Amino acid sequence: MKSAPRADVLVIGSELTRGAQVDLNGPSLRYLAESAGYTVVRLAYLADDVGEIARAVASSLDADVPLLLLSGGLGPTTDDVTRQGLAEALGVSVEVRQEELDRLARRARDRGGEVDDGSRRQALFPEGSEVLPNAAGSAAGIYAEVGSSMIFALPGVPRELEAMISREVRPRLLRRCPQAIQRGVLLRTAGIGEAELARRLDGLLAGEDVEVGYLAAPGEVEVSLLERLDDENAPSRAEALLEKIEEAIGSHLYQVVRTRGQADAGVEVLRLPKAAALPQVVGAALEQRDWRLATAESCTGGLLARRITDLPGSSAFYVGGVVAYANTLKSAQLGVSAAVLASSGAVSASCAAAMARGAHERLGAEVAVSTTGIAGPAGGSADKPVGLVYIAVVSPEARRVCRHLFSGDRWIIREKAVVAALDEVRRLLAGLPASGSVDEGDGAAR
Amino acid sequence: MKSAPRADVLVIGSELTRGAQVDLNGPSLRYLAESAGYTVVRLAYLADDVGEIARAVASSLDADVPLLLLSGGLGPTTDDVTRQGLAEALGVSVEVRQEELDRLARRARDRGGEVDDGSRRQALFPEGSEVLPNAAGSAAGIYAEVGSSMIFALPGVPRELEAMISREVRPRLLRRCPQAIQRGVLLRTAGIGEAELARRLDGLLAGEDVEVGYLAAPGEVEVSLLERLDDENAPSRAEALLEKIEEAIGSHLYQVVRTRGQADAGVEVLRLPKAAALPQVVGAALEQRDWRLATAESCTGGLLARRITDLPGSSAFYVGGVVAYANTLKSAQLGVSAAVLASSGAVSASCAAAMARGAHERLGAEVAVSTTGIAGPAGGSADKPVGLVYIAVVSPEARRVCRHLFSGDRWIIREKAVVAALDEVRRLLAGLPASGSVDEGDGAAR
Repeated sequence: MKSAPRADVLVIGSELTRGAQVDLNGPSLRYLAESAGYTVVRLAYLADDVGEIARAVASSLDADVPLLLLSGGLGPTTDDVTRQGLAEALGVSVEVRQEELDRLARRARDRGGEVDDGSRRQALFPEGSEVLPNAAGSAAGIYAEVGSSMIFALPGVPRELEAMISREVRPRLLRRCPQAIQRGVLLRTAGIGEAELARRLDGLLAGEDVEVGYLAAPGEVEVSLLERLDDENAPSRAEALLEKIEEAIGSHLYQVVRTRGQADAGVEVLRLPKAAALPQVVGAALEQRDWRLATAESCTGGLLARRITDLPGSSAFYVGGVVAYANTLKSAQLGVSAAVLASSGAVSASCAAAMARGAHERLGAEVAVSTTGIAGPAGGSADKPVGLVYIAVVSPEARRVCRHLFSGDRWIIREKAVVAALDEVRRLLAGLPASGSVDEGDGAAR
Repeated sequence: MKSAPRADVLVIGSELTRGAQVDLNGPSLRYLAESAGYTVVRLAYLADDVGEIARAVASSLDADVPLLLLSGGLGPTTDDVTRQGLAEALGVSVEVRQEELDRLARRARDRGGEVDDGSRRQALFPEGSEVLPNAAGSAAGIYAEVGSSMIFALPGVPRELEAMISREVRPRLLRRCPQAIQRGVLLRTAGIGEAELARRLDGLLAGEDVEVGYLAAPGEVEVSLLERLDDENAPSRAEALLEKIEEAIGSHLYQVVRTRGQADAGVEVLRLPKAAALPQVVGAALEQRDWRLATAESCTGGLLARRITDLPGSSAFYVGGVVAYANTLKSAQLGVSAAVLASSGAVSASCAAAMARGAHERLGAEVAVSTTGIAGPAGGSADKPVGLVYIAVVSPEARRVCRHLFSGDRWIIREKAVVAALDEVRRLLAGLPASGSVDEGDGAAR
């Protein structure tokens, strides 16, 4: 298999280099490139500066990068200078495109305004470039080819960028490389590390014409298998190996997503953030039985509820929960007995079990999950170190208390605990073994 | 005032260009540069590739960037190639530093091992560069000067990077520019947009030798005022103007942080993530009166609890809460009456008020705050559009129900609602007017 062609991503906007914390475009463009079979080598955030943009583009062109994706700096204000930076790198001038100016004039009139300097700026394009229509906003995109490099400059408004990716960019990527049919399989896993996954899969995939990638988040790893084939009907090696791969990953595997061909890479499930995948899988398992979920959180302090409710439509399977941060709430809201808190403490298998039972009985859900542990930085001891987390799950058919010991700082431990909690629910519902070590003591018993 | 000198940040690691979701080093280095008075023009994520690292460094040196900060790629494995990329850009070879090799040998022996190829790789430094000691790990950092450019290459492990910033980088930045005494003031605000803030402050600051920066997050904006003075005792214009500035921002201002001089830039409050500032301010106001807080969330679905419990030590003022996603939980756990749900609906001032009252009465906290609204994407109507959120606050002294209408997608609306909820608690405790429009109907009444 040819090695993956390179892509560079340039995200433009001084608000980003100055540190505004929310950038959705960099990850979107990276994902676009990766799902089209490119490997991103550089993802750069640049200030709104003509020279800086020009230098960054020129540096990618010097390296003969086949795909260069830009976003931002196409707006109507004077600090939007991506058009000029791109033109400088291409060694051309910017010129007014009359059809764009006409469109912007119609758009302005429809809104009761007139063409202004901003519109005139948005009608400027580097000589020799193509206009990429923007159905959702004022800023059209720019497409240019230089040698074997394809350059796309897209607007910075995420909604407009996403629409333009689907309508303009993906189809062009596909037309450009009609021979490079791609087949991809994404394997989403929880509770197993990247190194252990690689150890299990490397032997299976050695010598195969399949490119393997690992993408780790706290508690989760996504494995991507990618093939480039000459023919839509060519047999897929990844598919042929899939059964063995699934067996090697075992119960850690919670979702398999197939992406057949570049045009299909945006299948519905991939439109959701990756963090929504596990809640979605758990939700589907619950909805299949018409069951609903409740949460009882101590150390994760609302993070588990938040992860679930980030998923649009989660109200179909999630009733809510109790964040029992103080022990008084564990007793008053979840019925954890003073005896359990006194004898075993709040971070114990028995407390986790009592919290899950309490949520199950009081919150009107068939399934309940609880978390209690020590996220740190303070509060750890030799017996109960930072990172120790108990998770209990109760369903109408089964119950289980699991002990986990997570590494990392407070933030990572809480994230890992949330993934583990969802994963233990998935496992109990599917009749799979627990991910953590199952507590055989009083926690497991009623 | 001289305009701010430029800094570039290069974060190295293929796991980052491939899309691992957690990068703490880019923001840390950006903040280091900004707090030392630099403006970041380029923040780039690079794959572990010698040529790419060399090109990126060379491009910064070509632009005579006074400060270049790198992280990552200093580890012991063969894919760690930052040393080689940096050397290539500097036009020098790498050489073994015996004292580093000795340190690594001692370190290995202390752990019962021996010097291996990895240690030998970590003892390589570009000719002419300095070793930056790493007290916390195996990877020493690199310092080099080229013309007027200072280059720091730091390890990618966040804990080691942070320690090295404090011990090695900040002191060198300060020694390098002894004349450039800096004074900074950070003004943290909630519930007011960047444009409106700029409108209020631009007139006050016009012609003053104070650099103004705005850093926006959903619902919050941080304003930074920076002066560069020739003398530690020179009078500060920012301080002289502060009273008028505070008056112009009004009750939206929730925290003022002074940073005097580069060496002090890491004052304790700045060590916390910015997202922790508002919970911290609210927590301090509660602790002052020995009061505690409970939450009752619908549309924010755990995000408010999570934001609070992200703050280490929040258990001192936060008891926990109820995530009442389903209406059944609003009734069963918070005592919202069927009449309120039937007549006004779950997204209403009366429901918000009842939720806060219920949390106040049942969760054993003196202060309670509730959220109920429509985060979208579905569920909006003409009467109750997506973005409508009611927030109620109850304290022993006062109660209030506020109506907010937020723009943005589901994610942004939920974040803004959390900020507004914390801000409304702060305002009620401080006797300040509400940020949202206060509902005068049945919601406000008992």
